[in-house]
Amino acid sequence: MRNFISVHDVKDINALAETALMYKADPFKDRKLGADKRIGLLFLNPSLRTRLSTQVAAANLGMEAIVFNVDKEGWALEFEEGAIMSGSSVEHIKDAAPILGSYFDILCIRTFPGLKNREDDYSELYISQFIKYCGVPVISLESATLHPLQSLTDIISIKETLKENVAFKSINAKPKIVLTWAPHVKPLPQCVANSFAQWVNAWGEADFVITHPEDYELATKFTQGATIINNQDEALKGADFVYVKNWSTYTDYGKIYENDPGWMLTDEKLKLTNQAKVMHCLPVRRNVELSDEVLDGPNSIVTRQASNRVWAAQAVISEILKNA
Amino acid sequence: MRNFISVHDVKDINALAETALMYKADPFKDRKLGADKRIGLLFLNPSLRTRLSTQVAAANLGMEAIVFNVDKEGWALEFEEGAIMSGSSVEHIKDAAPILGSYFDILCIRTFPGLKNREDDYSELYISQFIKYCGVPVISLESATLHPLQSLTDIISIKETLKENVAFKSINAKPKIVLTWAPHVKPLPQCVANSFAQWVNAWGEADFVITHPEDYELATKFTQGATIINNQDEALKGADFVYVKNWSTYTDYGKIYENDPGWMLTDEKLKLTNQAKVMHCLPVRRNVELSDEVLDGPNSIVTRQASNRVWAAQAVISEILKNA
Amino acid sequence: MRNFISVHDVKDINALAETALMYKADPFKDRKLGADKRIGLLFLNPSLRTRLSTQVAAANLGMEAIVFNVDKEGWALEFEEGAIMSGSSVEHIKDAAPILGSYFDILCIRTFPGLKNREDDYSELYISQFIKYCGVPVISLESATLHPLQSLTDIISIKETLKENVAFKSINAKPKIVLTWAPHVKPLPQCVANSFAQWVNAWGEADFVITHPEDYELATKFTQGATIINNQDEALKGADFVYVKNWSTYTDYGKIYENDPGWMLTDEKLKLTNQAKVMHCLPVRRNVELSDEVLDGPNSIVTRQASNRVWAAQAVISEILKNA
Repeated sequence: MRNFISVHDVKDINALAETALMYKADPFKDRKLGADKRIGLLFLNPSLRTRLSTQVAAANLGMEAIVFNVDKEGWALEFEEGAIMSGSSVEHIKDAAPILGSYFDILCIRTFPGLKNREDDYSELYISQFIKYCGVPVISLESATLHPLQSLTDIISIKETLKENVAFKSINAKPKIVLTWAPHVKPLPQCVANSFAQWVNAWGEADFVITHPEDYELATKFTQGATIINNQDEALKGADFVYVKNWSTYTDYGKIYENDPGWMLTDEKLKLTNQAKVMHCLPVRRNVELSDEVLDGPNSIVTRQASNRVWAAQAVISEILKNA
Repeated sequence: MRNFISVHDVKDINALAETALMYKADPFKDRKLGADKRIGLLFLNPSLRTRLSTQVAAANLGMEAIVFNVDKEGWALEFEEGAIMSGSSVEHIKDAAPILGSYFDILCIRTFPGLKNREDDYSELYISQFIKYCGVPVISLESATLHPLQSLTDIISIKETLKENVAFKSINAKPKIVLTWAPHVKPLPQCVANSFAQWVNAWGEADFVITHPEDYELATKFTQGATIINNQDEALKGADFVYVKNWSTYTDYGKIYENDPGWMLTDEKLKLTNQAKVMHCLPVRRNVELSDEVLDGPNSIVTRQASNRVWAAQAVISEILKNA
Repeated sequence: MRNFISVHDVKDINALAETALMYKADPFKDRKLGADKRIGLLFLNPSLRTRLSTQVAAANLGMEAIVFNVDKEGWALEFEEGAIMSGSSVEHIKDAAPILGSYFDILCIRTFPGLKNREDDYSELYISQFIKYCGVPVISLESATLHPLQSLTDIISIKETLKENVAFKSINAKPKIVLTWAPHVKPLPQCVANSFAQWVNAWGEADFVITHPEDYELATKFTQGATIINNQDEALKGADFVYVKNWSTYTDYGKIYENDPGWMLTDEKLKLTNQAKVMHCLPVRRNVELSDEVLDGPNSIVTRQASNRVWAAQAVISEILKNA
C-alpha cells in the first residue's frame, strides 16, 4: 500500500482488518517499526477521534507524530493550477507539499468539501494535488467525498461483533447491514456514507441495504451493489447492523430538502430489526439523529467503533511503513 | 489516588508535597513509570503554565502527552443529560468521554465556570460528567470552582520556603498565611481562592487568614477553618506569606462590586507583615493586583511557585500511575 | 553560541553551514545530544516551515519539542516596562519568561513587527525582553527585523549548489548574488531581506547586489557592503543566484509605495542572468512575486532551501546544546 485514500488502495480488506485486530490484542507488537520516522497530520478542518487515534497509533509504532492545524496555525492554501495569487490564499500546494514531503515520511491530511460545487468536491482536487506534489505516502483523514479510516474501523467493528456472536454465524449466510439516513440540523458532507457504501460493497460479505428519503440519493459510483429503499421501516426489517448517518443532498448538491424527525432511529424502530447493532461514526446529535435510549442501550456499538479507530490507523500506517 | 479533583483525593498532603520535592531534586527518577502510557490534556479554556508544566511532568515520567484544545481544534460539547441536540453543541460528553478514555490512560481537563449561574458552576457538572463517562483517572487542570494542581504547588512552595528559613521555624509555632483579595479589570472565577483555602485548611499547619472587601465572601465550605477579616491592613499584620488573588463575587454571583485600588499589594503594605513572602498563581495584572516593586522585589516567590508546577503535576501523575 | 538571534551570534558561518550539511548526510548522528532536554517553540505569529523543521530538527537530536501558540492557545503578553495592566494584555513578559525558562532548556520565539512604528520594531523589544528575562538560550524563529534561521538555510543552499556545480568554481572568483524586491499584495516585514543582506555581507564570499524600486531602500546597517541598484535588469546581469522577496518601505515605514508588476521575476528576466538559481523563503505569491514558469522550472531551488531548514535548525540547536 502506497497511499490510503479509498478502498481501492487496499488489496485485501479482511487481511487489513485482521492486522488491526492483531494490534488491538498487542498494541506494541511493532513498536520499533516507525523508529526514526515522522508522520505529519495536517488538518484543514477540525477533528477529534481521527486526530487523536492516529497520534496514538503512530506512537504505538514508535513513530514521531506532529500535528499541524493548517487553517488555524498556518494560512490559506491555493490548490488551483496557474492561479494569480493576489487574493487571500497565501501559499500554493505546489510549494507547500514537496517541503512537507521532505520533512515527513508519511503525510496525513483532512479536507472537507465546500458543499457549494459538486464537480469541484467530487474531483477531490485538494487531496489529489497534495498527493501529486508531496512525494511521500498520503493517508486520508477524510477528504471531500470519502473517509476511509472510518470505513475500515466500521468493517473491523462489524467483523469483531460477528466473531463474538457465534450463534449469528450459524443462522445467516450473510449479515444484513442497513445504512440509514438520519435528520440533522446542518448540511453535512456525504463522505462517511459514500465511504461506508464503497467499503461494504467491496467487502462483499453482507446483504447491504441503503435507505433514505427521496432526493437524498448518493452517488451511484459508491452505492452500486447495494439495494436502495426509500421506506425506512421496510429497509430495517431483519437488519443485523444499522449504520445511522445524515448527509446533505447529492443531486441538487449540498442542501437540506426535508428533515423529517420520523427518520430518527429509536428503540421502537429497532424492534423491526434482528436486534441489530447500531453504528454511527460520531459526533452524533443526540435525540436528532438517534435517541438517547438507543445510544445508551445495549445495541449501540458506537464506542467500540470509535475505539477501534486506533487499530485501523495503526494497521494502515504499518502497511505503508512495511511497504516503504 | 484515582482522580485528582480536589484536596479530598489526597490522603497525605505532606507526603504528596515531599514526592514533588523529590522529583525536583531528581526529575528523571521514575523515567520509566509512564512507558507505553498516554496522558491526554484537554482544554476547554486557555492555559500556559498548567499545560506546559503538565506536558513536561509527563515527559519526565516517560509518558506520551497529547494536547487537545477542545474549543479551538474540536467543537462545542454538550453536558446536559437528555439534551435534544439541535443547537450549537456538536457532541455529547457521554459519547466523547468514553472514547477519549479508550485512547488514554489518564485524562486531564480544564473547564472554566460560566460565572452566570452559581448553582451550575458549583455543581461542577462538566468535570463530574467527564469523570462519570470516561472510565479512566481524571486530573483537574482547573475546574469551575477549584484548581488543585495550583494549590498543591502553593503548599510545596510554602514548605520549601519554610525549610530554607531555619530561623523562622524556631520563632513561630505556625506560619501566618494571608489570602488577600486584589483588584482586577474583569470578573474572575473563585477557583484559585477556593482551592487555596481548601488546601491550607486541610493541611492545618498554618494560622490562616482571609481578607477581602465586604461582599466578596467566598463559599463557606471552602473557607471554614480560616479567620475572615475585611480590613486588609489588620489582616496583613505579622503575615509570613501573603497570597494575592482577585475573585468575583460569590453571593450575588460573578460580579465586580467595587474595585478599590487601595487593595493592591504594595511595598508599603508589606511593611505591615513579617517580611512576608508574596504569592500569586499568575497571570498577574501588574500595578493592578500587585505593584511592580513587590513582584520584582526580594519578597516575591511567584516564579518559584510557577516553576514548582512541574513537580506538583509529576507527583500527581506518578501517584495515579503507581495506583493503577 | 548562547543565543541565535542574528549573524552576530555566529563565530564561523562556514563551519555552522558544514555542521548543517553533516546532519543532512546523517540526521541521527547526534541522536542522544538532546536526551532529557526540552525545547519550547513559542509562536506569537503563524508559521509552517519554521515550526515543523525545528520540531523535526529537535527530534533528530533526541530532544522533546513542545509547541505553544501564545496568541491562540494563551493570551496577549505585555512587553512594556512599568505598564499598568488594566487593558487587554493579560501577562507581562517579566512574569511569563522566567517560568518558561524554568520549564525548558532552550526557548524559541517568533514575533512579527507591527509595521506601525519603526523605532519600536527596530528596537526588537519583544525578543530582547524575552532574552533578558527567560534565563535560558533563545533561538529566533523570526523577529521584528531579522530571520536568522532562514538566512542560515540560504547560505547552506548556496554553498550546496556551488559544490555541485564544479564548472562554476573554475570560472568565477565569487558568485554574484542578487537580492531583488518583488511585488506583493500586502505590506510585509523587512526581516528576510535584512537578514539575508546581513548574512551575505558577513559571509563575504559573494559579489552582492541589492535591487529595488526607489523608496524601497533597506536599513543601511544591514545592507552595508552590498551594491545597490534601482534598475532590476541592470542588477540581474550575470547573476548566479537571484533571491526574490517583497518588503514594505523602511524609510516612510511599513507602506506599499508602488507595486509595479514589471518587477515580478519571469523566465524572460532570467535570460539576463548567468542561468541563475532562483531563491525565495516561501510562502510565495505565484504569478505576483515570481511566475509559475520560474518556480516550476529547473532554475528554482526554493524546495531545496525550505528542505534545508531542518539542517539549519539542527545545527543551531546542537551548537547551543554543546555549549551549555
